[in-house]
Amino acid sequence: EILEYIQGFFTRDDLAGLQVLITAGGTREPLDPVRYLSNRSSGKMGYALARAAVQRGARVTLVSAPTSLLPPAGVELVSVETAREMYRAVMERFAEQDVVVKAAAVADYRPVVCAEQKIKKGTDSLILELVRNPDILSELGLRKAPRQILVGFAAETEDLEANALQKVEKKNLDLLVANDVTQPGAGFGSDTNIVKMVYPGGHIQPLPLMDKLSLAHRIWDAVVELRSGKSPA
Amino acid sequence: EILEYIQGFFTRDDLAGLQVLITAGGTREPLDPVRYLSNRSSGKMGYALARAAVQRGARVTLVSAPTSLLPPAGVELVSVETAREMYRAVMERFAEQDVVVKAAAVADYRPVVCAEQKIKKGTDSLILELVRNPDILSELGLRKAPRQILVGFAAETEDLEANALQKVEKKNLDLLVANDVTQPGAGFGSDTNIVKMVYPGGHIQPLPLMDKLSLAHRIWDAVVELRSGKSPA
Repeated sequence: EILEYIQGFFTRDDLAGLQVLITAGGTREPLDPVRYLSNRSSGKMGYALARAAVQRGARVTLVSAPTSLLPPAGVELVSVETAREMYRAVMERFAEQDVVVKAAAVADYRPVVCAEQKIKKGTDSLILELVRNPDILSELGLRKAPRQILVGFAAETEDLEANALQKVEKKNLDLLVANDVTQPGAGFGSDTNIVKMVYPGGHIQPLPLMDKLSLAHRIWDAVVELRSGKSPA
Repeated sequence: EILEYIQGFFTRDDLAGLQVLITAGGTREPLDPVRYLSNRSSGKMGYALARAAVQRGARVTLVSAPTSLLPPAGVELVSVETAREMYRAVMERFAEQDVVVKAAAVADYRPVVCAEQKIKKGTDSLILELVRNPDILSELGLRKAPRQILVGFAAETEDLEANALQKVEKKNLDLLVANDVTQPGAGFGSDTNIVKMVYPGGHIQPLPLMDKLSLAHRIWDAVVELRSGKSPA
């Protein structure tokens, strides 16, 4: 809170007039009315990005999968549950965005069928057939207009830099924030993060351990630089 | 809060001297370091039961799968993640319990293997092989001493009474609290619940819509009656 107070003091309006969309949380992919497949995203990074963007004057749309967080004051919240709902919510709004930051952990796979009734535990084993979900970030990379900035996140457990460099090029991103979720202080649910900022062309900037709101501001700093056409520091 | 204040006023010490164990939350069954299978349990019912038991003088152990709730003051919290961890935590402590209330939603199935690294989304489809988890409630029913009271919960989406009656007998329970999670106000994550109290022998007592703390007290009332040897109202 003290940090936020100090940051409030130095608030710039450098995102004023911009429309930004942030995705957050981990999607849930139902098997039946009770069970689902999900992931360890807490939504904290995405909510910190939304809060920081509001502080800096942006109009903010937060497309959020389920979290236990309160949405920051001043954002337009769009609640979704599954990857396909998030896909639709983002695509419908993409054209009017200046910046999209995809901090959500979207399930790559969903069950082929969602049972209408709770599956009974009749058998000793069960085969669950999964299919790929739409890749929201790749789709945004394809549709991106020259004036639009696209920022992605990658949670990796091995080969962080190689995977991140491949992703930033393949998905046509302006910036990829990559974190090794196996590191202490960098994992899901944590209030801090340790990331590397990965730019197309191969520039990689490692950042120290930071609380998520400070990292959010650091990411908006990078977005402001990208919009001004300067190459990142 | 007003309700809790009033309930505090009428606090009985009718659970004084009793050691009770309550399970809460929905277990998570990992596929890899990031993804897991879970269910919609919020943990609210189990935490309300723990709070009510403390108010009535019991010593309370709360074995909890991940939730976004703060544990009630005065409980011993045992945090677990998977069904197998919950199984071990409960079994280790069962002998010294007077009452066990199993409000957790334990995953019936877990992935056969948990990948050490995050599974890459290489393919269009994925087959997930699941195996049965140990049935904690059935195991407790088998081991139960005559002096011990065992209370279970059942979330159903169809044939509520038939399923509940079968479960109460098969698992050797003293009471099963059955709720149809498809009803408005009875679902997961809700602050209220609509349940039927189902007793061995076939007595079924439907209760009206209640907030979860009031329902928790109603369940402890039933436990006190069961311990006194009176047949339930």
